Amino acid sequence: MRNFLLTIRFLGTPYVGWQVQKNGISVMEKVQDAIEKVTGVRSDVKGCSRTDSGVHANMYCLSFKTESTIPTEKLPIALNRKLPDAITVMSCEEKTMDFHARYNCLGKEYLYKIHCSRFRDPFLHQLVLEYPRPLNVRAMQAACVHFEGTHDFRSFCSIRTDQEDTTRTLWWVKVEKNGEMLEVRVAGDGFLFNMVRIIIGTLLWVGSGVLSPEDVLRIRESKERDYAGMTAQAYGLYLNRVFYNFEEVKKFGEDS
Amino acid sequence: MRNFLLTIRFLGTPYVGWQVQKNGISVMEKVQDAIEKVTGVRSDVKGCSRTDSGVHANMYCLSFKTESTIPTEKLPIALNRKLPDAITVMSCEEKTMDFHARYNCLGKEYLYKIHCSRFRDPFLHQLVLEYPRPLNVRAMQAACVHFEGTHDFRSFCSIRTDQEDTTRTLWWVKVEKNGEMLEVRVAGDGFLFNMVRIIIGTLLWVGSGVLSPEDVLRIRESKERDYAGMTAQAYGLYLNRVFYNFEEVKKFGEDS
Repeated sequence: MRNFLLTIRFLGTPYVGWQVQKNGISVMEKVQDAIEKVTGVRSDVKGCSRTDSGVHANMYCLSFKTESTIPTEKLPIALNRKLPDAITVMSCEEKTMDFHARYNCLGKEYLYKIHCSRFRDPFLHQLVLEYPRPLNVRAMQAACVHFEGTHDFRSFCSIRTDQEDTTRTLWWVKVEKNGEMLEVRVAGDGFLFNMVRIIIGTLLWVGSGVLSPEDVLRIRESKERDYAGMTAQAYGLYLNRVFYNFEEVKKFGEDS
Repeated sequence: MRNFLLTIRFLGTPYVGWQVQKNGISVMEKVQDAIEKVTGVRSDVKGCSRTDSGVHANMYCLSFKTESTIPTEKLPIALNRKLPDAITVMSCEEKTMDFHARYNCLGKEYLYKIHCSRFRDPFLHQLVLEYPRPLNVRAMQAACVHFEGTHDFRSFCSIRTDQEDTTRTLWWVKVEKNGEMLEVRVAGDGFLFNMVRIIIGTLLWVGSGVLSPEDVLRIRESKERDYAGMTAQAYGLYLNRVFYNFEEVKKFGEDS
């Protein structure tokens, strides 16, 4: 038996998210289908995280065990032949048998893309949030510090959660604007249900002047979901990076 | 009566091209629908060019006449509200009554995008040609000179054409590679049926070693379509720029 870590990229638009659901097609079942076609056996795959319907991934990791003797370096090409155009295997690595894509994951970075223009871009349809009104980028940047660190994030978590412990650590929250594209990066050791999308919705309220940067601290301390911004639409959100060692976290945090 | 020049961008994937066709939905009818909803009258619109099914446009120009008194600067927003997500009006300009988007057009630049990677990019599906094999970029660049200038382009024109005169002038043909993206720009005063896509197909044969750069000259002189490369798929092709004055051509040619 061998244990593989697969790194994939996927366009989220056609799927109900990573996890298998009754109401639509999931990324997970497409990956399982491809593995079955290549190895002859349907494997149980372990994803690094759930993702919401419509959310994209520049990087997503999963592990699976197989008796197949196919050479590691041939797996990406073989799987890509069987995968739909919206999902691509980027790399494959053989791991020890105890490796698990979720349990060994130290944290993740999410990227949220906001296209700031009076005119929507036809080539970015369902790949960004189109935001045609002005945004105060400096105010958004000033608000980021109130999200960083170890905090109770109950205010920024869907009330539909079943999590008891809502304390998480965010390593960095960064807002950058390049031309018409505003990018928000949120990295940390764990994320609550809809947490990134509610943080983005709150930052958009700061950017549009509804909230001051300091209001974010008060909202966080209130532990009341009602005071935070709306849940930003899924289409602008990308799982951007999955971390399995702290050296990588440090390096990536400094470079970005 | 007023005469407007509209500049639009569109994603070509959902359409049969600019021109109205019996077998599908055209960009032109979507634009006419929007104009009718905004002005109350169905206008005859004049496009700068036909485009093939699936071809995209970073810039496309059209003119139309209307009795509407709507202010020029309000037209883009009003039309965008009525247009599908795949089509966006970028700007609008009032012209003299004799202006015609096709007859006044001096030339165009096309852009062809080739993604050179072993792995297809899920976010570029139907936006590029995926080309997973190696390409000799220098050889492709060396071949460009044989396309530039005033020539009979019969070898690079679909045999389904009804054009008698197949002489055209290409102002520049440029190949550039940035990371995994190879971009070919072809600009000139006029284009035959499938001409850009056959030029790209021929350049791909040069890049993959099937032809030498010098073979392109012999193919051009043969005036035989059979000797040129295959017609490259429509998805990688963008109408990139439409020129209405020579100053613009000169400036754009030098900058790019």
